[in-house]
Amino acid sequence: MTQVITKQAQTTNATFTALKCKECGAEYELEAKHVCELCFGPLEVKYDFSRLSVTRESIQAGPNSIWRYRQFLPVATDNYIDVGTGMTPLVKSQRLARRLGLKNLYIKNDAVNMPTLSFKDRVVSVALSRARELGFTTVSCASTGNLANSTAAIAAYAGLDCCVFIPADLEAGKILGSLVYSPTLMAVEGNYDQVNRLCSEVANTHGWGFVNINLRPYYSEGSKTLGYEVAEQLGWELPDHIVAPLASGSLFTKIYKGFNEFVAAGLVEGKPVRFSGAQAEGCSPIVEAFKEKRDFIKPVKPNTIAKSLAIGNPADGIYAIDIANKTNGNIESVTDAEIIEGIKLLAETEGIFTETAGGTTVAVLKKLVEAGKIDPDEKTVVYITGNGLKTQEAIQGYISEPFTIEAKLDSFEQALERSRTLDRLEWQQVIV
Amino acid sequence: MTQVITKQAQTTNATFTALKCKECGAEYELEAKHVCELCFGPLEVKYDFSRLSVTRESIQAGPNSIWRYRQFLPVATDNYIDVGTGMTPLVKSQRLARRLGLKNLYIKNDAVNMPTLSFKDRVVSVALSRARELGFTTVSCASTGNLANSTAAIAAYAGLDCCVFIPADLEAGKILGSLVYSPTLMAVEGNYDQVNRLCSEVANTHGWGFVNINLRPYYSEGSKTLGYEVAEQLGWELPDHIVAPLASGSLFTKIYKGFNEFVAAGLVEGKPVRFSGAQAEGCSPIVEAFKEKRDFIKPVKPNTIAKSLAIGNPADGIYAIDIANKTNGNIESVTDAEIIEGIKLLAETEGIFTETAGGTTVAVLKKLVEAGKIDPDEKTVVYITGNGLKTQEAIQGYISEPFTIEAKLDSFEQALERSRTLDRLEWQQVIV
Repeated sequence: MTQVITKQAQTTNATFTALKCKECGAEYELEAKHVCELCFGPLEVKYDFSRLSVTRESIQAGPNSIWRYRQFLPVATDNYIDVGTGMTPLVKSQRLARRLGLKNLYIKNDAVNMPTLSFKDRVVSVALSRARELGFTTVSCASTGNLANSTAAIAAYAGLDCCVFIPADLEAGKILGSLVYSPTLMAVEGNYDQVNRLCSEVANTHGWGFVNINLRPYYSEGSKTLGYEVAEQLGWELPDHIVAPLASGSLFTKIYKGFNEFVAAGLVEGKPVRFSGAQAEGCSPIVEAFKEKRDFIKPVKPNTIAKSLAIGNPADGIYAIDIANKTNGNIESVTDAEIIEGIKLLAETEGIFTETAGGTTVAVLKKLVEAGKIDPDEKTVVYITGNGLKTQEAIQGYISEPFTIEAKLDSFEQALERSRTLDRLEWQQVIV
Repeated sequence: MTQVITKQAQTTNATFTALKCKECGAEYELEAKHVCELCFGPLEVKYDFSRLSVTRESIQAGPNSIWRYRQFLPVATDNYIDVGTGMTPLVKSQRLARRLGLKNLYIKNDAVNMPTLSFKDRVVSVALSRARELGFTTVSCASTGNLANSTAAIAAYAGLDCCVFIPADLEAGKILGSLVYSPTLMAVEGNYDQVNRLCSEVANTHGWGFVNINLRPYYSEGSKTLGYEVAEQLGWELPDHIVAPLASGSLFTKIYKGFNEFVAAGLVEGKPVRFSGAQAEGCSPIVEAFKEKRDFIKPVKPNTIAKSLAIGNPADGIYAIDIANKTNGNIESVTDAEIIEGIKLLAETEGIFTETAGGTTVAVLKKLVEAGKIDPDEKTVVYITGNGLKTQEAIQGYISEPFTIEAKLDSFEQALERSRTLDRLEWQQVIV
């Protein structure tokens, strides 16, 4: 039997007022609940932004983290968990922009987000802050890796018990990157969608706060900060075009929501922003629906190196398509080989080492530019969402080898000569 | 024949005026040069701080990176390379502090430094900015791993050619974490000290800027920012005690220099700060000299998992000992097993995943507390200098395993029961 969790929230000095069904509009109390009882639609947080009291200056005077936007987030008190998450660099690209022929390219670099080097630290910081307000002592998640890293780390910091679920075949760095924080780690023999279904059952039988299940309405709001920060870092202005990865589709829709809330709050001027999304060919149910102009997603069995994007049945896929359509954006996919090239391209030109998800996004950016679907003058922001040290096996064997030498000058000189010959050969290939 | 590099610097709006021998005081022009021609002592940058025009407010209004301290650094123009390096979190410890019985513990977390997740990004940002001013087009380094990652990444960003040298037996993550940026990577069959000697020869025959050889006087100044930032982040106050890792000893001496410069500039009040240093038992020449009250270092052959600290012949070891002695600090070593425990302790209590160097520092902190050498009330700062994702093999096999389960509720429930039994057993062991 479904056991509804009814721990009450203390909502003081907060702008959020209820949970509301995205489909039928039914409203619920601010509990740990994510599905509408009437129509089974997803619940969202509802705000009363007439209670907002923010200016550009008050935000800039706030913490150097996502918590400078606290009034836009579903956390009731100032007793939030701040581990320095957010305010990652927005880099004006020089060398990647030149390589692609773009004049106004920016890179939002969450590969150095704190504490666990992916954008998931944003949603987990919000979800665990809210979990604590709702009285949970054990937190959990269904994860493709990054989310487990982040939940385990921030739970450790906050002293919460933690049990995380992942597909058993994840990259070593992502498994170790959770285990080191000593959570209970359940490695499930199956893909993410199976992990997710199992977790839904567990959420109904144990009184745990699952950040991306029963706490999902609060959790997903954390991604809005990737919209707020870009707007603030561009000098309180929206970009012309954004390119972001699509896993469940949630991140994409929340960047959109973030921009719109900043316009509504009078913090930036409204203007059209094009939204383009990136998937791996081996898991591209959203791309397929977009190209076939369908209004439903056909679930797929994922088979790609971009494991953090490998969600075959993406919950917010339809909403992502809707946004791409109404903003005149695109949704495109790339092969695993192109993903690896994307990782290398970003590293070589900008000194940023991203994981497979970021490689996917860079490769889709390149593909859209080459297809004339991004104008060279557009102020374009590409979202890099995780760090390459977590998915090392993806590029092992596809990058150059070291020159192994003896600790002697002549051994070095010979190797240097070999490396220069290789460079010349590469150039000749390029010229031919 | 030694080929002296004489590219001239353009020193406009700068406070640094010469290179000066740390031993005999001889002065040299601001070139790429690191050894005194008269006494073979190390050269340092000399400043005229009467030219300083900074206040707490002007610093706070500067960039959110090490470049807010530009007037204290040996870079002449505002055309420096800013990749967001520095201003990493200073975390007030709750759970680690309680575990150790400390009341005022802070963690300076360079495990999330940008772009390559170690404190080396600080010194490389300074060195490559200066290299560009001196006209170098190829940059290089001798590295135990982190420095190679950082040099390769920031050179890629700045469009400089790059050739890096490492010992061939480094951790996979550190090798891949350089290769991805496409430098020429020389893997030398030998230890760091042999790599370093080879690089000194290469620096004399090729016109390259070696960040930690001919550019060392500029490079090493970047570490002062770890002193400045802690002082600023403590609310313009110095701590009572710092604990930092010792490889060459340079970092330690530069934190000291940073504190003193801030006192001299009137930015913080002067007070005694105790300096304690950490080495791995498998490479502890500085500890040995400290304990035997020697004024010279006996080089050792390193044998430890803390490869980033494995410098058997540390250039600044003597200066580090001098500082520990005159500040009433300590220099201590820990075993490889204690290093692994240190990594786990920090992860479990603070959600920070550090590499072996950080594990060493945390383990030495613990050892000093247990020996009564750190007072519980002292405002103590422990420096975490690199990220655990780069040295995954060090802890593989020493952390718990995932529970592998089927995607079924009863398989999960059984695993959960097993995990709880394990927890009870662990508790019983603790109690016994």
